Amino acid sequence: MVVYKLHYFNLTGLGEPIRFLFHYGGIDFEDVRYEMNEWVDLKKKFPLGQLPVLEIDDKEHVQSMAICRYLAKQVGLAGDSDLENMEIDAVVDTFNDIRLKISTVMWEQNQEVKKEKQKILHEQQIPFYFKKLDEYAEANNGHFACKKLTWADLYIASWSKYFSYAIKEVFNDYENYPNIKKVVDNVLAIENIKKWVETRPDTFC
Amino acid sequence: MVVYKLHYFNLTGLGEPIRFLFHYGGIDFEDVRYEMNEWVDLKKKFPLGQLPVLEIDDKEHVQSMAICRYLAKQVGLAGDSDLENMEIDAVVDTFNDIRLKISTVMWEQNQEVKKEKQKILHEQQIPFYFKKLDEYAEANNGHFACKKLTWADLYIASWSKYFSYAIKEVFNDYENYPNIKKVVDNVLAIENIKKWVETRPDTFC
Repeated sequence: MVVYKLHYFNLTGLGEPIRFLFHYGGIDFEDVRYEMNEWVDLKKKFPLGQLPVLEIDDKEHVQSMAICRYLAKQVGLAGDSDLENMEIDAVVDTFNDIRLKISTVMWEQNQEVKKEKQKILHEQQIPFYFKKLDEYAEANNGHFACKKLTWADLYIASWSKYFSYAIKEVFNDYENYPNIKKVVDNVLAIENIKKWVETRPDTFC
Repeated sequence: MVVYKLHYFNLTGLGEPIRFLFHYGGIDFEDVRYEMNEWVDLKKKFPLGQLPVLEIDDKEHVQSMAICRYLAKQVGLAGDSDLENMEIDAVVDTFNDIRLKISTVMWEQNQEVKKEKQKILHEQQIPFYFKKLDEYAEANNGHFACKKLTWADLYIASWSKYFSYAIKEVFNDYENYPNIKKVVDNVLAIENIKKWVETRPDTFC
């Protein structure tokens, strides 16, 4: 049996899509979590000085998207053709475009710069990208790609908790984006995912 | 016959890995190039207001990484297993981590901020990531992943021209990173790639 060990911070973030995929597939894994204040000392222990890291039978693997794409294959949530995989990758990358903008503003330390960036984020970038994603969800019959459940749905749904902290001023569980909301709600209603979300560690984001 | 039409700016950047993959595979494509000053008017014509966009038989596809991964499959430069593909994806994403830092500094408008960021980039980030990539290249017998030629090699090699502008102060064709240099030189010596690089439009980056 393959032994999986996920190293990430004690929050959702880039670790949560990986946890969602494991739980969806009913695959056992060790969910190792670090507190931020431990990180300075731990950083050097990991190949790129960054997390997540997934150990598969003691071999360390880096880069969250590479890990997600691999696990999606293992749990049957990849596409059935190269074209389908391109479609999934594209919507995930588009989601990550806005997700990165959100994270950058969230971690900005200069309060003046933060306020300025927040304005552009809330007034322009979030509406633009969320509308696009809503259109994708509408065009794909309640999914983000390929008109069926893929890892794009799980990936995007896994960020909701993070968003409810990072952009709490404007995030209302996608109420204004009914097609995104439907996909996310459907993912969160999947038995294995539901159980995980109900029992996972309660973190600030 | 599939008809490919690539829309990108008249520079290397995110378009060049795609062009490299087409040329490597000997696949015909239309190489549509836009000047920066045309962009304000053109932006709205494209799905996400960004480039590259690849038309495949008139259907528009977005997101450069999704496009590269798809084309890599078509030209035989993807991995032979899910594990191999994860390894390729991981090294490409690690390269993109530093590539993005380089681009952010290159396009920074505030000269004071730029200078500060440049210092961190040149003294810490570039040495850190280039050393990691050099280690990968050494461990993989002259390739970046899987001990064989994959799209990771083409991807990384395709950015050399861009780097020779973006970080001209410190970039010397990887002279200090002999293993990276070897991979890049080998890619640029592939007949179809060599011909392309010799005849491609002469752009500033």
